[in-house]
Amino acid sequence: MKNYIKVDEWKIIEEGFDPHLNKISESIFSLGNGRMGQRANFEETYTGESLQGNYVAGVYYPDKTRVGWWKNGYPEYFAKVLNAANWIETGIRIGEEILDLNSCTVREFRRVLHMKEGYLERSFVAELSGGKQLKVLSKRFCSIVDDETGAISYSLTPMNFSAGIKITPAVNGDVKNQDSNYDEKFWDEVHKEADDHLGIVLMRTKKTGFEVCTGMKFSISSDRGEPEYQIRPLTGEKYAASEVTVHVSEGETITVCKYAANLSSENYPSEVLVSECKKTLDRIYSKGFDKMLQEQAAAWELKWQESDIVIEGDAAAQQGIRFNIFQLNQTYTGEDARLNIGPKGFTGEKYGGSTYWDTEAYCVPFYLATAPPEVTRNLLIYRYKHLEKAIENAAKLGFKNGAALYPMVTMNGEECHNEWEITFEEIHRNGAIAYAIWNYIRYTGDKDYLAAYGLEVLVGIARFWSQRVNWSEEKHKYVMLGVTGPNEYENNVNNNWYTNTIASWCMDYAVEALEYVKRASPERYEELISKMAFDESEEIPAWRHITANMYFPESAEYGVFLQQDGFLDKEQVLVKDLDQADRPLNQKWSWDRILRSVFIKQADVLQGLYFFEDRYDEATIRRNFDFYEPRTVHESSLSPCVHSILAAKLGDEKRAYDFYLRTSRLDLDDYNNDTEDGLHITSMAGTWMSVVEGFAGMRVKNDALHFRPFLPGQWTSFSFNILFRESILNVKINRDSVVLSNQSKKNVTVYVFGNAFEVAGGKEVFAEYGKYQV
Amino acid sequence: MKNYIKVDEWKIIEEGFDPHLNKISESIFSLGNGRMGQRANFEETYTGESLQGNYVAGVYYPDKTRVGWWKNGYPEYFAKVLNAANWIETGIRIGEEILDLNSCTVREFRRVLHMKEGYLERSFVAELSGGKQLKVLSKRFCSIVDDETGAISYSLTPMNFSAGIKITPAVNGDVKNQDSNYDEKFWDEVHKEADDHLGIVLMRTKKTGFEVCTGMKFSISSDRGEPEYQIRPLTGEKYAASEVTVHVSEGETITVCKYAANLSSENYPSEVLVSECKKTLDRIYSKGFDKMLQEQAAAWELKWQESDIVIEGDAAAQQGIRFNIFQLNQTYTGEDARLNIGPKGFTGEKYGGSTYWDTEAYCVPFYLATAPPEVTRNLLIYRYKHLEKAIENAAKLGFKNGAALYPMVTMNGEECHNEWEITFEEIHRNGAIAYAIWNYIRYTGDKDYLAAYGLEVLVGIARFWSQRVNWSEEKHKYVMLGVTGPNEYENNVNNNWYTNTIASWCMDYAVEALEYVKRASPERYEELISKMAFDESEEIPAWRHITANMYFPESAEYGVFLQQDGFLDKEQVLVKDLDQADRPLNQKWSWDRILRSVFIKQADVLQGLYFFEDRYDEATIRRNFDFYEPRTVHESSLSPCVHSILAAKLGDEKRAYDFYLRTSRLDLDDYNNDTEDGLHITSMAGTWMSVVEGFAGMRVKNDALHFRPFLPGQWTSFSFNILFRESILNVKINRDSVVLSNQSKKNVTVYVFGNAFEVAGGKEVFAEYGKYQV
Repeated sequence: MKNYIKVDEWKIIEEGFDPHLNKISESIFSLGNGRMGQRANFEETYTGESLQGNYVAGVYYPDKTRVGWWKNGYPEYFAKVLNAANWIETGIRIGEEILDLNSCTVREFRRVLHMKEGYLERSFVAELSGGKQLKVLSKRFCSIVDDETGAISYSLTPMNFSAGIKITPAVNGDVKNQDSNYDEKFWDEVHKEADDHLGIVLMRTKKTGFEVCTGMKFSISSDRGEPEYQIRPLTGEKYAASEVTVHVSEGETITVCKYAANLSSENYPSEVLVSECKKTLDRIYSKGFDKMLQEQAAAWELKWQESDIVIEGDAAAQQGIRFNIFQLNQTYTGEDARLNIGPKGFTGEKYGGSTYWDTEAYCVPFYLATAPPEVTRNLLIYRYKHLEKAIENAAKLGFKNGAALYPMVTMNGEECHNEWEITFEEIHRNGAIAYAIWNYIRYTGDKDYLAAYGLEVLVGIARFWSQRVNWSEEKHKYVMLGVTGPNEYENNVNNNWYTNTIASWCMDYAVEALEYVKRASPERYEELISKMAFDESEEIPAWRHITANMYFPESAEYGVFLQQDGFLDKEQVLVKDLDQADRPLNQKWSWDRILRSVFIKQADVLQGLYFFEDRYDEATIRRNFDFYEPRTVHESSLSPCVHSILAAKLGDEKRAYDFYLRTSRLDLDDYNNDTEDGLHITSMAGTWMSVVEGFAGMRVKNDALHFRPFLPGQWTSFSFNILFRESILNVKINRDSVVLSNQSKKNVTVYVFGNAFEVAGGKEVFAEYGKYQV
Repeated sequence: MKNYIKVDEWKIIEEGFDPHLNKISESIFSLGNGRMGQRANFEETYTGESLQGNYVAGVYYPDKTRVGWWKNGYPEYFAKVLNAANWIETGIRIGEEILDLNSCTVREFRRVLHMKEGYLERSFVAELSGGKQLKVLSKRFCSIVDDETGAISYSLTPMNFSAGIKITPAVNGDVKNQDSNYDEKFWDEVHKEADDHLGIVLMRTKKTGFEVCTGMKFSISSDRGEPEYQIRPLTGEKYAASEVTVHVSEGETITVCKYAANLSSENYPSEVLVSECKKTLDRIYSKGFDKMLQEQAAAWELKWQESDIVIEGDAAAQQGIRFNIFQLNQTYTGEDARLNIGPKGFTGEKYGGSTYWDTEAYCVPFYLATAPPEVTRNLLIYRYKHLEKAIENAAKLGFKNGAALYPMVTMNGEECHNEWEITFEEIHRNGAIAYAIWNYIRYTGDKDYLAAYGLEVLVGIARFWSQRVNWSEEKHKYVMLGVTGPNEYENNVNNNWYTNTIASWCMDYAVEALEYVKRASPERYEELISKMAFDESEEIPAWRHITANMYFPESAEYGVFLQQDGFLDKEQVLVKDLDQADRPLNQKWSWDRILRSVFIKQADVLQGLYFFEDRYDEATIRRNFDFYEPRTVHESSLSPCVHSILAAKLGDEKRAYDFYLRTSRLDLDDYNNDTEDGLHITSMAGTWMSVVEGFAGMRVKNDALHFRPFLPGQWTSFSFNILFRESILNVKINRDSVVLSNQSKKNVTVYVFGNAFEVAGGKEVFAEYGKYQV
C-alpha cells in the first residue's frame, strides 16, 4: 500500500519524482479512448525502470502457449494485446546531452491527470550538466472525439541558458511485449516514411496479419514569434522521425505540438491505411491542439453527466470513485461490438488484454446504468459474434449438437489460456454470459433482443449444460463433476453449488426465452429453430428433467449451501485465525495448500446469492454470508464488491463500507502492490456497483427502479446519475432523505424502500427515507 | 503397432532399410552400460529423420520450467538428462560424395542387436553415384566391463571400384536436446584437442557445471596389410576429429577401430579429466576391439545367468522377455548409489531421464531377484541421500518438523516437474519409497538396513503423512484431500483409497521400525532419535490415532473400495462400451473429459491390493478386480503387469496371459506408437514381474520363496533364475511340474503351492504340481 497520490476531487496528482514509483504512476496516469490507449510513459528518453505500453484495441497476437506437458484440447495460443508502435516518443537533446530523467536532477516534478477534461499534464525542471535548468511542460490526451487520434503539446524553456536543441518527434514500431512467452517480437515492418514534420510506420503483426499505421505530424512554435530551425527526416528499423534543430534563447519557450493517428486494418483496407492515416493527421493538424483539447473537455463533460458519482464530505472517496469511472470510460465506449474490456484495459499487458467473464458479471451493470443501452447491447453482441467459435470450442472438448462453451479468456472467440483448471473447468462463465442477457433485458426492457440475437446464445449455452451434467446413480440426481467455481482456490471440484445453480437457471431461462420468442415472433422462431436444428420435443423436456432433478449440495448442520461436495471435509478454520505473515495466501502458500484449505478467493456461493437474490429469503442469505465471508480472503479484486452489496442488503452498513474501501482506491493506493502491472479496470466497475447497488440499494424490479439507500457515516451525501429507459435520473442520498431529480423529459416512477415516487420530467422529488429504515 | 522385427530367441533383427522406421529402430537397438548409453544412431552422416542421443548417467541440466501461470511452490527447473557429446560420429567421404543413407540407394541393410553378447551390428551395401557399391559393416558396444568406454569397428569395402576415401572419426559436443524448453543448447566447450588418431572435447554444462570429457582414439587397418594413409587433425566448435585419407582398392576392406571414453566430473576432479580420459583411451586401445568384445560377451554371459527367463515353445515371447531383461541390465547395474532408472533409460529424452516412483514400485522386484542385494540397496540409498532434499521439498509446501515429501520426478532430490497435479498431488510416491524398504527387507532379510538408513526415511515419510491428513468434523475421521492417485486420469480428488491406505501403512510401519531399531540397536536408536529430534511420546501416539481413525471410502452396494470419494457419482460405463475410435483416450479425448470420466489409466485400488494382498481375502480382491479392471484403459505401460499378477492370483490364466502380452513386446512391436521417443524401460520390469510373480506366482513369505505357478497354454515351459539369500535357484515350470535346481552351495527350502521342498546346494528337485491346483 502506498500513499503518494495527492487528494483532489477531480485530479490525480503526483508531486516530486520518485523513480521507484514510476511504473505505478505509468499505470495510474494511463490514457485511453476505447480505441487506443497508453501508459503514462514519458515522451522524452527515459532509461529508468518503465513498462512501455501503447495499445490498439482489437489488435492481438496469438503467442504460442507455454505449458509443461501438452494435454489434449489445450489452446494452442494465448492471444495477447500487443504493445504497438510508440507515438509519443520525442527525443530531446541539448547540445550533446540527452534529456533523460534517469540521469539528471529533477525538480518541481508534477504529474496531473485531469479527469474532468480528460488529459494528462506533466511538468518539471531538469537540472542538466553545468547547472543548466530546463523547464518542461507536456500535455497529452487520446481523443474521445476522434478516437483514432491523440495529441501532445510539449514545451521546453531553458531557464538560465541558451542552446541549440535537437527535438526528434518520432513513431517507433520497434517495440516488444514484456510478457512474450518466447521473447519474440510480434511486429514486422511493412512501410515507413519520414518527411519534414512527418513520420509514418505501417506495421504488420506476425501470424495474425493485422496492420496498424501509426503516424505523426507536428508543428514547432515559440512564444517569441516564428522560430527558425533546421529539419531533417530520419528513418531506422521500424522507425520514422523528423529531427528539428533549433536555437532556443534563455527564457524562450519552444513548443512542439505533435498530432498522432493509429489506424488499423480492422477498420480500413490495408492499401489505404497510409493515405487515410495522412488524411487523419492533416485533419487534426489543421484543427490544432487547443481546439482538440476543448472538444475533448466538452465530450468528457457529457460522459461525466451520465456516469459521475458525487460524494460530499470525503474528498479521498470522491477522488477514488471518479478515478474508477474515468478509467472505465477510457477503456470501453460501446461503439464497436468487436471490442470488449480487458481486466487491465489499456494500462498494462497482464491478462493479455483478453475478455473474461468480468465483463458480463461486473461491467455490464455499470454500462447499463451510465450509458445508452446500445453500449451494453454491443457487449452482448460481441458474444453473439463468437457463438460459432464457442460451439467449436465445446466440440473440441467432445460436446455435440450446437452446445456452446464460451471461452474463459478470449480475443477472437477462441479459448486462449493454458491452464486446464481455468479453460476446461471454470465453465461457470457460460452462465454469466446468459445472465448478462437476462440482466440487460431486465434493465432495458429490450425483449426483442432475444429474437434478434439472444436466443441462439441461450440455446447453445443450455445445450452445453445439458451435456455437461451426468446422472449419478449414487445420488439419483444430476451432478456436475470436475469444475472450478468462481473461487479459483479450489479446482476440479464436484457439484460447485454456484455452477450447478447458474447452469440450472440457464436451462430454465432458455426454455422461457424459447417460449417468449415463439409467442412474440413466430416467424423468426421458426427460422431460428431451423437454423439451430432445435428439437423442441426432445430438448426442452430433457432440460426440464435436468433442472427438476439437479443436485445442489447443502449442509443441514450449518443451514447453508455447500460450495462443493467435499467442502465440509476441509479443516474448518477462519481467516481471522490466519497468521498475518501468511497473507496474501497466493504469495505465501504453496498452490496445493491453498487448494485443500477452506479459504476462498472470491465470492462463490455468495456470487449466486447476489445474482439470484430474489429466490432466497434474507435469513438464508445471512446464514450463507456469515458462513462464507469469514472463510474468504478476498484475494481477487472482484470479491469485495459482491460482499459489500450483500452486506448492505443485510443492513450491515459498517461491513458494506469496509468492503467498498478495499477497492475504491485499490490502484491509487497500490493496495495489492501490483498496480505497476496495470490498473484493475474490471474491478472498478465493481466499486461503482458497491455504491449504487450497495449503498443506494438500487435494483430493477418489474420495469422500475428501486432504492434502499443508506449513507456511509463518513459522508455528507452522495449522488449519481442513472440512465433508465430514456429517463436520466439524478439520485442524491442525504443522511435521511433522497432527492430524485429527473433530468430528462420522461416521467418516471421510482421506489424508495418500496414506496413509489412519481418524478415528472425535469422535476425533483424529495423523499425522506429515515422513517422507512429498520 | 508394427511388426518389422524378425523373431529370434537371442537377437533383435531388422532387415531392409525403411527411413520411416528409423527413429523406432534407433530406440530399439539402443546400447547402454548403466554409466553411459546411446540410441542406435548411425556412425556416418545421416540427414534423414533421427533423434540423436548420447547420454552420460548422472549428468543433467536444470532446464527452466515452461508453465503458463506460475504458482507458488512450482519447481523452477525441469532437470533433464543431456544429450551429450557424440562419440560414434565417423564421417565417410568417397571422392566428393558423402556417405549418407538418406541420399543413396541402400541394399542388404541389416541391423542386429546381439543380446547374448551385448553388441550392435549393422551392415549394408550403399549404391553411390555412378553405380559404385560400398559395403559397410559396423559393430559397436558400450562396455559393461569398463563402463566409461565404448568401441566401434567400422569396415568399408568398395565392391566394384577403387577410390580415395576420407574417414573422419570425431567427437562432437555441438549437440542439443530436442526437448529443450527454450531451444537452448546446454553445453559450453571447455577444452578440445585433436591429434593424429585422437580427438578430445571437454564440455561443461551450463548452470550445473558438470564436466564431461569425451575422447576417441582409433586405428586404421586393411585386410591387405598395413594401409598407407594421410592423417590430419581437425577441430571446430565443440568438435575434435582426425581426418584420414586412404586409397582403398576394389574388394579391399578398410577397418576403423574407434575407442571412446566418457569421463565425468562426478567421478574425477575436473583438472584430471582430460589426462584420465587419455589414459583410459590408451588402455582400451591397447586391449583392442576383439578382446574388448570377448570380455563384453563373457560379462553378459554372467548377467544372463542371473537374470534370464527361458521360454520354450514360443520364440516371439522368448525374444520379447529377453529384450526387456537386456534393456533393464543395460540401464542400471547398481554399482553407483547416485544413479537410478529413468523411465526411458538411455534410449530417449522423454521423461527427462529422471527418477520416478517406477523404480520403487516396478524395478525393485526385478533387481531383488536377479542381482545381488547391494544393487537394490543402492537404489534405496539413492533415496536416503535425497532425504534432506525431500524435507526441504516438504517445507516449501508448508510441512514442518522433518516431514519428507520425496519428489515425483527428480534428478538430484529436488522436485523437477511442472504440473501441480503431479508434483504437489501425486504424493502416493512417498508410500512406494517406504514400501520398497519393507520389500527389500522382506526379500533379503537385511533388517540392519533400518538402523543404518531406512528408519530416517520412514520417519520423514510418516511425519509427512501425519501432517498431510486433516480431521474432518463431517466424517469424524482423518481425511486426505486434494491428491492424485496412481490413476493420473483423475486429479485433485479426496480420499484416494490407495493413497490413504499406503499412508496409513507407512505410519504403522514407521512405528514398527522404530520399535525394532530401539530393541535391536538401542545406541543407534538414541543417536537417530536425537538426530531427527524425534519425540516418541508425542509422535507415535499421534500416528496411531491417525491410522486408527483413517477414512477409507468403500461402496457397500458394490462391495468394493472406492477409488475416491466421488467415484460413484461418475457415469458408470465400461471400457467395452467405448467406441474404438475414441482410443487411446489420451489422444482422442480432451483432458477434462478424461478427468470426469470413470476410465482409469492404470491400477489404483488394484495397486494397493497388489502391494498388500495378504490383508485381503480372495473374494475381496476378486470383487475389486471385477469392478475396476473393466473401467481401466491401461494407457500407462505400468498398468498391465499388476493386472496380470492379480489375474494370475485369481486363477484367471487367460487374462493373466493377455495382460502380459500387452507389455512383453510393447516396444519391439511399437504397440503404443511411441517407441521412437525411447523404450519403456521401467515397464520392462513389470513384464518380468508378470512372468515371475504372475505365471510363476512367486512370493516371499516368512523368509522363504513360495510359488503358485501355471504355464501359459501357448508355452512348453518357462524357467528363470532367482537370487535369494545367497542361493541361486533355477525354476523351470513345465505343464504340470516344477523343476527346482539349486545352482549355489546353499541349501534352500522352497514352497510350491504351500508344500515345502528342500533343495540342497547343487541339487535339483522335481515337483509335480498339477495335483495341487484348483
